[in-house]
Amino acid sequence: MSPDAPEMDSNIISETSAQDDPANPSIASSSPNSLRRKTNTAEIDSTIINPGSVKINVLGAFIVDQEAVALSRENSHGGSYDTRDIRLPNHTAVVSHIAVDIGGSLAKLVYFSREPQSREPGGRLNFMNFETDRIDDCVEFMKLLKIKQQELNGSRPGALCVMATGGGAFKYHAKIKEALGVDVIAEDEMECLIIGLDFFITEIPREVFTYSEADPMHFEDPRSDIYPYLLVNIGSGVSMVKVSGPRKYVRVGGTSLGGGTLWGLLSLLTGARTFDEMLAMAERGDNAKVDMLVGDIYGTDYGKIGLKSSTIASSFGKVFRMKREAEMEAEDSGGLTNSDNESQPSSSPIETSPTPNEASPSKEPPFSSPDISRSLLYAISNNIGQIAYLQSEKHTLSTIYFGGSFIRGHRQTMNTLSYAIKFWSNGEKKAYFLRHEGYLGAVGAFLKRQPRNWGRRSSLEEGVMGVGTEARAEVSAAATSAKGGQF
Amino acid sequence: MSPDAPEMDSNIISETSAQDDPANPSIASSSPNSLRRKTNTAEIDSTIINPGSVKINVLGAFIVDQEAVALSRENSHGGSYDTRDIRLPNHTAVVSHIAVDIGGSLAKLVYFSREPQSREPGGRLNFMNFETDRIDDCVEFMKLLKIKQQELNGSRPGALCVMATGGGAFKYHAKIKEALGVDVIAEDEMECLIIGLDFFITEIPREVFTYSEADPMHFEDPRSDIYPYLLVNIGSGVSMVKVSGPRKYVRVGGTSLGGGTLWGLLSLLTGARTFDEMLAMAERGDNAKVDMLVGDIYGTDYGKIGLKSSTIASSFGKVFRMKREAEMEAEDSGGLTNSDNESQPSSSPIETSPTPNEASPSKEPPFSSPDISRSLLYAISNNIGQIAYLQSEKHTLSTIYFGGSFIRGHRQTMNTLSYAIKFWSNGEKKAYFLRHEGYLGAVGAFLKRQPRNWGRRSSLEEGVMGVGTEARAEVSAAATSAKGGQF
Repeated sequence: MSPDAPEMDSNIISETSAQDDPANPSIASSSPNSLRRKTNTAEIDSTIINPGSVKINVLGAFIVDQEAVALSRENSHGGSYDTRDIRLPNHTAVVSHIAVDIGGSLAKLVYFSREPQSREPGGRLNFMNFETDRIDDCVEFMKLLKIKQQELNGSRPGALCVMATGGGAFKYHAKIKEALGVDVIAEDEMECLIIGLDFFITEIPREVFTYSEADPMHFEDPRSDIYPYLLVNIGSGVSMVKVSGPRKYVRVGGTSLGGGTLWGLLSLLTGARTFDEMLAMAERGDNAKVDMLVGDIYGTDYGKIGLKSSTIASSFGKVFRMKREAEMEAEDSGGLTNSDNESQPSSSPIETSPTPNEASPSKEPPFSSPDISRSLLYAISNNIGQIAYLQSEKHTLSTIYFGGSFIRGHRQTMNTLSYAIKFWSNGEKKAYFLRHEGYLGAVGAFLKRQPRNWGRRSSLEEGVMGVGTEARAEVSAAATSAKGGQF
Repeated sequence: MSPDAPEMDSNIISETSAQDDPANPSIASSSPNSLRRKTNTAEIDSTIINPGSVKINVLGAFIVDQEAVALSRENSHGGSYDTRDIRLPNHTAVVSHIAVDIGGSLAKLVYFSREPQSREPGGRLNFMNFETDRIDDCVEFMKLLKIKQQELNGSRPGALCVMATGGGAFKYHAKIKEALGVDVIAEDEMECLIIGLDFFITEIPREVFTYSEADPMHFEDPRSDIYPYLLVNIGSGVSMVKVSGPRKYVRVGGTSLGGGTLWGLLSLLTGARTFDEMLAMAERGDNAKVDMLVGDIYGTDYGKIGLKSSTIASSFGKVFRMKREAEMEAEDSGGLTNSDNESQPSSSPIETSPTPNEASPSKEPPFSSPDISRSLLYAISNNIGQIAYLQSEKHTLSTIYFGGSFIRGHRQTMNTLSYAIKFWSNGEKKAYFLRHEGYLGAVGAFLKRQPRNWGRRSSLEEGVMGVGTEARAEVSAAATSAKGGQF
């Protein structure tokens, strides 16, 4: 909910209950219809003193269909609300912290709020993002959350704590602390990513899915035996993290060819100004206009080694030649030699801005901004998919999760990543996606200080030590041997 | 030599000798000063009937310092001569074939010629390249070679045979055959690549080298125990080939992000018109102007996982933001707010063409074409290096050779590839380069029909079965399980 949502009944505050006792998770109340209970003073104080250690009760959590909730969200201070809140029907404790994951391009914010205009117990996690170069907007919004925190989550005015992760947690640490006058606890980025991902995989129904054109969103049931796996987090750059247990991870690699590369190059090469504009262009482009296919080189398949005629041999491999031809033509004559354009039956004129440096103004260019967008989206996604597959092979990991703000639920991106994993592994491995792909780190920071195993589905439902409990007891973040990512 | 070199003494033709007997390689003459001998008619006929089976005597072969040889090379028909001929002082047999490797961007031509203006025996391999979209120039030049073949290599007029490989061997098969009126034998691309590479590794002194800034060209001695190894061939696209014995190989992967991608994107983004112009720009650019470094995100190192402040987190990761800022500024005002440019002390003005779509004409752009060139060269080279390393890990290969026309002996390219292999392997693996990097396929096609083991250094010098002889007896090109490269 927005901080500007109508005032809530201030009498409705929660109270401490047995379900908040980490030693007794199995006796937590699971009745969704019980009224919100009061919070006692001791609990509030404890929350203030140890803000990160608040126990988020995730029992019965589910993703809210946002269209069904009419919220006033005008005053979002330049941020964008994600449309997929997570409802936590059983969380009643006071929450006095918010979490922010500040990456190279986007700052992702997660905060808890009680239900607006409702006597329902529990509340929800809200997801917002801001562009990192507008970090001041994000800070302003956090100020607002601080002011409204009593009505939002029942915590004492001024008692806010910010859990921060991502590079910006360090870079902007002083700025946030000063602007809000609160504690800012900087948390390790990789650790938050996997805590967040573990939460989504194990707890949230209809969160994790596989993608295929025939079945675009095939949900996986939450499960507890999740290790080991590879997390591929695609933001401005790409990190690949091998996870062998809770908080047990190594950053095994990454690539500098990530979202930042796509947005950066497309902002130079096309007229698009937003990510969504670029993705929309990629939807309608034809990469074969700029990519050199196996068929362009061989005239046919290269069957002996299994390369189809339609395989991309060289991304943008046709451009240099066409560019030079256009320039030579422009130099040699002003005439139009092929005005009927029979060789480009499906070529659309450039729809936003002209292809840069196109030196043949009198002739329709042989490729358009959408063609460029599609080619580059393919190139970046294919490349990430291949490296992810090779890393999964090197580290014997059969499950690969793709997270990060690059994906944006975009069909083509997910299709390309899925195809790459399937192709390279001969169908033996699958790519898994998440509906909250961009918020792994922020949610991880939000949950980070929660006692290990508390509220885990396996513990709650089975009431016994689940698979992987021993591994979970290991706290070591085995990062000492971690490889730096790029160069 | 050029076909237009001065006429040779037509009496000087070679004769068959014991050294051409594959069964007796160890008795081959090795005197470099003996005069060229006559060829008998039977040998010429045999060469014509089985053109590919001519036995090239590589004993004592070495790379010619081209500056020391004054050749008239005007009439190269649009092609470029490579400056590193290989002298074959002991080859005396008639050669009636030439070889061409036609890739997506370049056609590489190799032909044999006797020594001009000399009574020295033997001859040399000549190396030329043409742009593939000027394939007609290449065909014209081959016609010239056909006309001059008697003086060039002693073969009967009209008896020329063309050994062709690369995709163009199939695509342009009919074209070449028709234009020249000769046999064109199309050979498999991957097989030719490794035959050529094996030849260079085992036979040619001062051919294979490692690169480092301190020791830019550290030569490796030719050796015979070369298997297994990984060949990374970088042309328009990239092929990675696992080689476990002579003609025993699998294409294990590749990437569509290759030379064609660099040339294509840079031709759109900069004013450069040739590869060399682009490489020259990359030499003087500063990639930190466009790349998002770890320090840009963290404000410092991300020491916990070993990422330095100077590590590239996202290639072109700074561009989107700067581009948008420039556009907003141009929209909001016409004024110049920061004319002293204090934040860009080393920024050079754009030196060739303006950065495309740069919407802030009144202000010096924050990055230049050279910056873009350097960033993209780094990105492509790093990426190939990483994938090569991961493939070498997957297939347990400790030696990695880089070939293909992308490298062009360019310092930064080799440095980046070397660094990537060293970085990812923790210094355990090395990148090897070749002075004839672009001609592996063409030389392989030239040598292809030579009997296995004939003229190999190991056989010649040791006179016994060398290491790997058993493996060499295996003819199988294990390509059935090969993976297609990209998508």
